[in-house]
Amino acid sequence: MVPPADGPVWAVVLAAGAGRRYGPQPKQYEVLGDERVIDRSLAMARAAADHVVVVLAPGEQAEADALVESGAADVAVEGGAERSDSVRAALAVIDADAAVIVVHDAARPLASPELHQAVVAAVHAGADAAIPGLPVTDTIKRVGHDHHGEAVVVETLDRSELVTVQTPQAFRADVLRRAHAGGDDATDDAGLVESAGGTVVVVPGEATNVKITGPHDLAVATELLRALG
Amino acid sequence: MVPPADGPVWAVVLAAGAGRRYGPQPKQYEVLGDERVIDRSLAMARAAADHVVVVLAPGEQAEADALVESGAADVAVEGGAERSDSVRAALAVIDADAAVIVVHDAARPLASPELHQAVVAAVHAGADAAIPGLPVTDTIKRVGHDHHGEAVVVETLDRSELVTVQTPQAFRADVLRRAHAGGDDATDDAGLVESAGGTVVVVPGEATNVKITGPHDLAVATELLRALG
Repeated sequence: MVPPADGPVWAVVLAAGAGRRYGPQPKQYEVLGDERVIDRSLAMARAAADHVVVVLAPGEQAEADALVESGAADVAVEGGAERSDSVRAALAVIDADAAVIVVHDAARPLASPELHQAVVAAVHAGADAAIPGLPVTDTIKRVGHDHHGEAVVVETLDRSELVTVQTPQAFRADVLRRAHAGGDDATDDAGLVESAGGTVVVVPGEATNVKITGPHDLAVATELLRALG
Repeated sequence: MVPPADGPVWAVVLAAGAGRRYGPQPKQYEVLGDERVIDRSLAMARAAADHVVVVLAPGEQAEADALVESGAADVAVEGGAERSDSVRAALAVIDADAAVIVVHDAARPLASPELHQAVVAAVHAGADAAIPGLPVTDTIKRVGHDHHGEAVVVETLDRSELVTVQTPQAFRADVLRRAHAGGDDATDDAGLVESAGGTVVVVPGEATNVKITGPHDLAVATELLRALG
């Protein structure tokens, strides 16, 4: 594995989701502790990046201006219909000399600065990509359907080999650009790198790094934030 | 699939864990809302069962007496070193005419009465076993180690085929007895049934049916209990 050339680290914080599962207000604008989810996610991303790009939903110009004005983000761009459209919108504004690009979901505001730094360090050490993974604690089974259409278990997976994946995820800039050049619609950037034969290293994830997707999750995240001090 | 003979439904609530991951006090004795975790788990199990067996850690005689005295459990037995030892200890006291046996972890106090009833109904409808499964929302990857011993991704699983498994799990009594007759040490009763060629049906699980394993989980469960009303 060849380390990337020295150069700036860019963070991309994805906050373009309409968050319809959550409620009337997109989840990234809910308040967590004394700031909004998006504000905390941007601040954490800043810990390991020289430059921060925030990707917002179309029509969020006032929000974009405010985030850049306050210095929370260096650049704000408009996202697309799919997650990978949003990643590509960010790639379009990232300088050509970027060495490492970190992609993070704004819906994971509790990822620590140390986790952001750990994935960047693994790419600096030579990986094409580095992602946080947590051991799978629940039993995972593969399900099929019988001839009545009923869901039945096909097999139980060996969970000792499995990890559940989080963001932030760090990439060699050239590898992430190539992965997205195909225009594939991927919810999993690292998966694109794997498909292209790249080496994806797994660093220890954080149990507290929950994703805010449903109405209970904000209450959970608030509790975790309190517990984290 | 042949429905089980008519007969009583027995619930086994496993509360023998020392809970060392949690803290000084085993997790099942922590307070959740206005009762202990174990009390709520027993009450929920009662909703779908004619008889309830609680499995406690060795030396918990006073607790055993109190739970039987109050009617929370019909029988209390002493568990073993492994989960399957505890299941077998319960099987030893379950009447021969039992038709369906439900196995539930006391550490999942938020499983609803409806969920307990749903797994029992699926076995009554002809399945050898029925388990709650939730769609997998996170990306799951299989991890190996490279020649430096570093954790690297081997493959990304197709999560549309996967479920994460919960308890309560219901079994035809004869099927569960046969599955445990081999004396295997299994953390997954349904997996034993699958290995023996039995049909395991998946019913929709509950997002709120969290497992209390670590210190954050009790705070999370308290929030969820409040949200559930």
